[in-house]
Amino acid sequence: MSYDPASFNPCTFHDAVPRFIDGSDTPRAFLERCLEVIAAREPVVQAWVTINEAGARAAADAATARYKAGRPLSAIDGMPIGIKDMLQTKDMPTEQGTPLLKGTETKADSASVLALRQAGAVILGKTVTTELGMSHPGPTTNPFNADHTPGGSSSGSAAAIGAAMVPAALGTQVVGSIIRPAGFCANTAIKPTFGAIHRGERLAFSQSHIGVHAGCLEDMWAVAFEMSQRSGGDPGHPGLYGEVTPHRATQPRRLIVMEAEGWAQTDSQTMGAFERVLGQLKDAGVTILRRGDNPLIERFEQAIGDSLALCRDICGYELRWTLENLIDRYGSGLSDSMMSRLDLAQSMSIDDYRVVLLRREEARRALAAIGGLADGLISLSSVGPAPLMENKAKDSGVTHTTGLPAFNAATSLLGCPAITLPLMAVGGLPVGVQVIGQAHTDAALTGIAAWLRAHVAPVVA
Amino acid sequence: MSYDPASFNPCTFHDAVPRFIDGSDTPRAFLERCLEVIAAREPVVQAWVTINEAGARAAADAATARYKAGRPLSAIDGMPIGIKDMLQTKDMPTEQGTPLLKGTETKADSASVLALRQAGAVILGKTVTTELGMSHPGPTTNPFNADHTPGGSSSGSAAAIGAAMVPAALGTQVVGSIIRPAGFCANTAIKPTFGAIHRGERLAFSQSHIGVHAGCLEDMWAVAFEMSQRSGGDPGHPGLYGEVTPHRATQPRRLIVMEAEGWAQTDSQTMGAFERVLGQLKDAGVTILRRGDNPLIERFEQAIGDSLALCRDICGYELRWTLENLIDRYGSGLSDSMMSRLDLAQSMSIDDYRVVLLRREEARRALAAIGGLADGLISLSSVGPAPLMENKAKDSGVTHTTGLPAFNAATSLLGCPAITLPLMAVGGLPVGVQVIGQAHTDAALTGIAAWLRAHVAPVVA
Repeated sequence: MSYDPASFNPCTFHDAVPRFIDGSDTPRAFLERCLEVIAAREPVVQAWVTINEAGARAAADAATARYKAGRPLSAIDGMPIGIKDMLQTKDMPTEQGTPLLKGTETKADSASVLALRQAGAVILGKTVTTELGMSHPGPTTNPFNADHTPGGSSSGSAAAIGAAMVPAALGTQVVGSIIRPAGFCANTAIKPTFGAIHRGERLAFSQSHIGVHAGCLEDMWAVAFEMSQRSGGDPGHPGLYGEVTPHRATQPRRLIVMEAEGWAQTDSQTMGAFERVLGQLKDAGVTILRRGDNPLIERFEQAIGDSLALCRDICGYELRWTLENLIDRYGSGLSDSMMSRLDLAQSMSIDDYRVVLLRREEARRALAAIGGLADGLISLSSVGPAPLMENKAKDSGVTHTTGLPAFNAATSLLGCPAITLPLMAVGGLPVGVQVIGQAHTDAALTGIAAWLRAHVAPVVA
Repeated sequence: MSYDPASFNPCTFHDAVPRFIDGSDTPRAFLERCLEVIAAREPVVQAWVTINEAGARAAADAATARYKAGRPLSAIDGMPIGIKDMLQTKDMPTEQGTPLLKGTETKADSASVLALRQAGAVILGKTVTTELGMSHPGPTTNPFNADHTPGGSSSGSAAAIGAAMVPAALGTQVVGSIIRPAGFCANTAIKPTFGAIHRGERLAFSQSHIGVHAGCLEDMWAVAFEMSQRSGGDPGHPGLYGEVTPHRATQPRRLIVMEAEGWAQTDSQTMGAFERVLGQLKDAGVTILRRGDNPLIERFEQAIGDSLALCRDICGYELRWTLENLIDRYGSGLSDSMMSRLDLAQSMSIDDYRVVLLRREEARRALAAIGGLADGLISLSSVGPAPLMENKAKDSGVTHTTGLPAFNAATSLLGCPAITLPLMAVGGLPVGVQVIGQAHTDAALTGIAAWLRAHVAPVVA
C-alpha cells in the first residue's frame, strides 16, 4: 500500500462523542473497532510493545456508563490512547526501548498518564520507542510501506496513528522524536511549548517535551489540553493555555519560512511539493517571508544553524549520569550509538555545557526577535519521506536510523510549539508540513493549523 | 549535654588531607574514627537509617591507596559522607522517611551521589529524613539535647554533623530543610542557588535544592563544588561557579537584615543574641541596613512576606501526582499532615498555580532589585533554638513538628544561596545565623561567611 491523502482515513474520536451522548455508539464499541484494526495491521506495523486489552475494556465500559449517565469526565472520556513506552504506566511495564529494562514495572503512572486516566481516557497500551528514546530502532514499520521507517523515537505512536489504530497516542521529543515520525506517518501532531505538559518522572533533559500524535487537530489538542488541566505543566512552568477546542481557523497574514539545517538536505521532489504548498498560501493572500527578506530572519537562521550539534551536546551532557548508572548496573547492553553519545558527554566540562546553554538562549532570543514580523513560521517536518529501514544517515556525529531530525532540532532547542499536518505525499509516502509559533502560543497555533488544513489541498508529488 | 560554642569540636576533613599526603594518617583510619563516634552517639542521636560499613571501608581503602600513590581524585577523596535518605544510592535502600517505601532498592545513584563516588568520597550511609522530606518526623534527636528536635527534614544529616560523626552530609531543602536543622545542630551548611547541584531523580519540585551540611566551611564548599564539577547543576542550569576552596575572607561593606516571616515570631532571647551579632558587625565597620532604611528593602520584605504560604501552594500543587500515585498503589499510610497537603493541592486549579508562580517571580525581582544596595543579606536561621520533640507548631495550615521554617521559606522561594554558621547559643542549644546572596553568587558568599567566622565571636545567651 502507499499513501494517498485523498483516501487516508485516520481514526478520530471527537466526531464520535455526539453519538456516545445520544446513545447510538459507545466508548466500548469504539474500542472494539480500534482493536479490530490493531488485529489486522499489527503483525506488519508492530506499533505496540504491550496492549492491555482487559484494562482497556474495563476503562471503556466505565466511560460508557458515564456517558449513559450523562456525566462524561472530559472531552476525551473513553478515548483509547497509546502511551509511548518512555512514560511510566502503573499497569504495564516501561521498557524504554532497551533490553536492559525489559519487564520493568514502576507501579506508577507518569503525570501525563495519570491525568489521562483522571480525564476518563482509555490507556490501551505502550507504543514502541527507539533505545532510550534516542538510538537503536525498534521493530515498527511505516504503515504506508513496511520497507520504510516510521521515524523515531516515537515510532509506535506515529505508526499507530498512521495505521488508524487509535485516535491519539503520546510521544516525546528531545530532538526530533514527535514531529518527524508524525510527518512520516501522516499524523496531525504537536510538540508543545517546552514545559507545557508535565513530563512526570522524565525531567532529566532540559529540552524534552511530551506531545500528542493524533488523527486530527481536534483530538490532538483535546488530549494535550485535558492533560495540562489535570497535571499542569512541568514544575515551575505555567502549562498549556487555551480552551479544550482548537482556535477557530485563522488565516495568517504573514508566515516565515524556517530553513533550519534541513533545507540544504531536502530532496528536490519534496522541496518542489513544499513550494507548491507555499504557492497555495500565497494565492490565498498569505505573505511568505524568507531569510533574505529581513536581517532578523537571517540572524535567526544563523542562530539555529547549528541546532543538531547543540542538541547533541546539551542532551549528551544531561544524559551522562543516567547512562553511567545503567552501565554500572548492567555492564553492557547499550548500542554503539548510545555509547558514542556517552563518550562525547564525558569529554565535556561543565563550562562546555554552560556555553551550549548560552547558545540555546541566544537562539531563543533570536526567535523572540522575529515574533513581531509574522504570525508564525512554516517548514517541512522532515527532509523527505521516510527513508528505507536500513538507512543509517549520520549527522553531527550521531547515527540516525529513523531519518534525519534536521528540521526538528531547531524547534526542540527553541522550546517553541510546532504542529505538523499531513499536507504532502512524496513518492507514495506522507511528508509533513509544520507550523511553528512563539513560546506559549500553542493555542493560537492551532488556529493557523486549522486554517491550513481547510485551505491547502494536499500536494502529491 | 548542652551546646557550648567554645568547646564544640566538629569533625573536619580538609585539615586531615595533608596528613593523608604525608602518610601520617589515612582515609581508612579517618573512617574508623568516624565509626567510633557513631558507635558512641548513635543509640541516642539516631541519625542514620542505614550504614554501609563494609562498602565504606572498601571505599576508604581505595582512597588510602590513591593517596599513597600520590593520586587522590579530588579534594574530598576519602571523605566519609552521609546521604539524606531522599536521594538514591545504588548500594542502599532509599526509603524517603515513609513506611510505604521501606526497603525500596533503586539500584542507581542520584546524580550527586554518583559525582561524590567519582570524586572518591566514601558513601557511608543514609541519614534520617522526615516523611517524604516534609511531614512526620523520624527518630533522630538533637545531638546537644535529646529532648529537642534536630530539625527537619534533613534531620539525620544535621544531627550527624552536630554529633561530629562525619565531616559532611547531603541535605535537601524545599522550604526550610537544610538551613533550619543545620542551625539547630551547629552545622556550617549551604543551600545553594536553585539548580546549582544536580537533583538527579528529584526534579519534581520547582524550588528544591541539594545542599551540604558540614563541620566547617572548607568541607561544606569542597563537597558542593566537587559534585557540581562532575554532575553539573540541574538540567538547563549552569551549576555552581567558583573554585574548590571557599573565597578568602572578605569583609562586607553593607549587609541587609532580612526579617522575612520569622522576625515577629523570634523569642526575645534569640533576638537579643542576634542583635549582639549585628553589634559586632557594626563595631567592625559593616553597615547594617534594615527595612526602614530603603524603600527597596521594604518592598523586598513585602514581596517575601507570604513565603510560607507560597511555598506550601507551589510545592503542594507540584506534589499532587506523586502523592496520588502513592495512594493509588498503597491505599493509605501517609500522615494526616501529608494528606492535608494533598487536599490543598487538589483544591488548586492550574490558574491558581500560575498565580503563585508569578508571585514567586515577583519576589525574585524584588531580591534582584536590592542587589546593588549591599554585599548580601543576614538573618537568623530559625526563630529560636530547636523546640522540644513534641512541638507541633502550625503555620500556614501545615503542621511543623521540627520547628518553624519562617526564616527559610523566603530563601527557598527566592532560589538564592544561603549559608548558615553556628554563631549563637541560646539556652544551651545552637542557633544559626545565615548569610544570603544573589543567585549564582554562592562562591562570593563563602568569602563573607569566612569573614564572619573569623570576626564574630559566637554569642552565648
